[in-house]
Amino acid sequence: MDPIAYVNGSFVPLSDAKVSVLDRGFLFADGIYEVAAVLDGKLIDNASHLSRLERSVGEIKLKLPETVERIQEIQKELVARNKLANGLVYLQVTRGADKGRDFPFPASDVKPTLVMFTSEKDIVNAASARTGINVITVPDIRWERRDIKSVALLAQVLAKQAAAEAGAGEAWMIQDGQVTEGGSSSAFILTQDDVIVTRHNSNAILPGCTRKAVVTLAAERQLRIEERPFTIAEALAAKEAFITSASAFVQPVVAIDGKKVADGKPGPIATRLREIYIGFAKATAV
Amino acid sequence: MDPIAYVNGSFVPLSDAKVSVLDRGFLFADGIYEVAAVLDGKLIDNASHLSRLERSVGEIKLKLPETVERIQEIQKELVARNKLANGLVYLQVTRGADKGRDFPFPASDVKPTLVMFTSEKDIVNAASARTGINVITVPDIRWERRDIKSVALLAQVLAKQAAAEAGAGEAWMIQDGQVTEGGSSSAFILTQDDVIVTRHNSNAILPGCTRKAVVTLAAERQLRIEERPFTIAEALAAKEAFITSASAFVQPVVAIDGKKVADGKPGPIATRLREIYIGFAKATAV
Repeated sequence: MDPIAYVNGSFVPLSDAKVSVLDRGFLFADGIYEVAAVLDGKLIDNASHLSRLERSVGEIKLKLPETVERIQEIQKELVARNKLANGLVYLQVTRGADKGRDFPFPASDVKPTLVMFTSEKDIVNAASARTGINVITVPDIRWERRDIKSVALLAQVLAKQAAAEAGAGEAWMIQDGQVTEGGSSSAFILTQDDVIVTRHNSNAILPGCTRKAVVTLAAERQLRIEERPFTIAEALAAKEAFITSASAFVQPVVAIDGKKVADGKPGPIATRLREIYIGFAKATAV
Repeated sequence: MDPIAYVNGSFVPLSDAKVSVLDRGFLFADGIYEVAAVLDGKLIDNASHLSRLERSVGEIKLKLPETVERIQEIQKELVARNKLANGLVYLQVTRGADKGRDFPFPASDVKPTLVMFTSEKDIVNAASARTGINVITVPDIRWERRDIKSVALLAQVLAKQAAAEAGAGEAWMIQDGQVTEGGSSSAFILTQDDVIVTRHNSNAILPGCTRKAVVTLAAERQLRIEERPFTIAEALAAKEAFITSASAFVQPVVAIDGKKVADGKPGPIATRLREIYIGFAKATAV
């Protein structure tokens, strides 16, 4: 069955869901996106995603074409129309399509584009959560405003393609000898002293919604947390490593560049945090 | 009249020229573009643009869906269908639309997208070529592979929007105290010793086609050239400053951040190089 997508006010079959070639998302990567998980037909941590959406569009002075309340209604309607039980809702807003192509922002009567579509994914029962994933490392060659969740993702495409070619599930990006984050996830380690370490938010990384929730949930359970950069040497000397993202929740990292992390098996803290996050997700789903 | 655009094998009215919301150009900025000028219905320096296109797609392992010979035929047909005398032909190739959204490259049966459209512009008689333009400076926050002409242009959008808000015609981007290039042009100065200076090609800048032609044309006329970075202080102490691009040819820069370059008027070398370039363009147009 052709899934249903949303494009600028209309629900249409995904195969008919199109935007103008003049859309600034297509021509300039002049757009912002968010991905929210769906469990049992409900949106996970969506307020956090919509709050980050508002922040990102504000940073590039892009006005949302709908209120975030209305955006959530559309997300829910799209989930319902697709009878989506478990998966993802993707949304993208761009600075719209002008009459031609010119770098500066278009006139204010050019309406931003809002697109959404869904995909099925059984995040809770993902095999990779039980086995853990391998990661590779690549240089972080991205721009200096990685805190903005823009669709200018070519560097991440190349990083994650390199990971795929290496049979790895994620690429950790390295700058000045330290891990910034994964191509589409946040990076964590658990030190030998039982401290959970993940890089602090700054322009160097995306402020991960799942990262934020996991840090909060861990702190509530008296787990020790340090938000600071770490190196691959530290990660390889760690008790555990893991990633977080909206589309994977928490997943153990069992090898980095072909070298095992600890005994090369998912660790108890990553596994526990995954269970805690899934509990939080289900309890707060909307 | 609605102009005619080209989308994946079809010539269609621009208002009907659309791509899937799953197009990787829209979702990931996973695409490359080129802009060639048109004078008297003929393409300017197009072999250079197509050569750069081949290089750019090669750097991101994107296979062109047509030969460059066929692409030039399409460009010419589009110029003819639009009865375009003077203007620009824009072309963009992306890694196509898969069935869903996933960062790594899609399977090889996903055909790349090829889009083209034209716009009218009287580059030769542009008023700004007679008056010169003001530029502002902004930090260069782009990624580390600026030699690839990708559509991940959000940093350039923000730079050129800042220029537009300041009433300037271009933004010169600064890294480590030196000019890299303009938001959509190459940057040049003429020193007090009559040396034309423009930054050397590297990953830090786009290898400009017009830049390359102007450097060659200047060298053929025994003008002295140095390809190296320069600072804004050097530019403000220079005899002249100017930019080059396919859509502007050569244009004098008469002020930087509100400070005059020399006497604040277009200089003789920029004006001469502009005339020389236009002569070259017309003589080699196809």
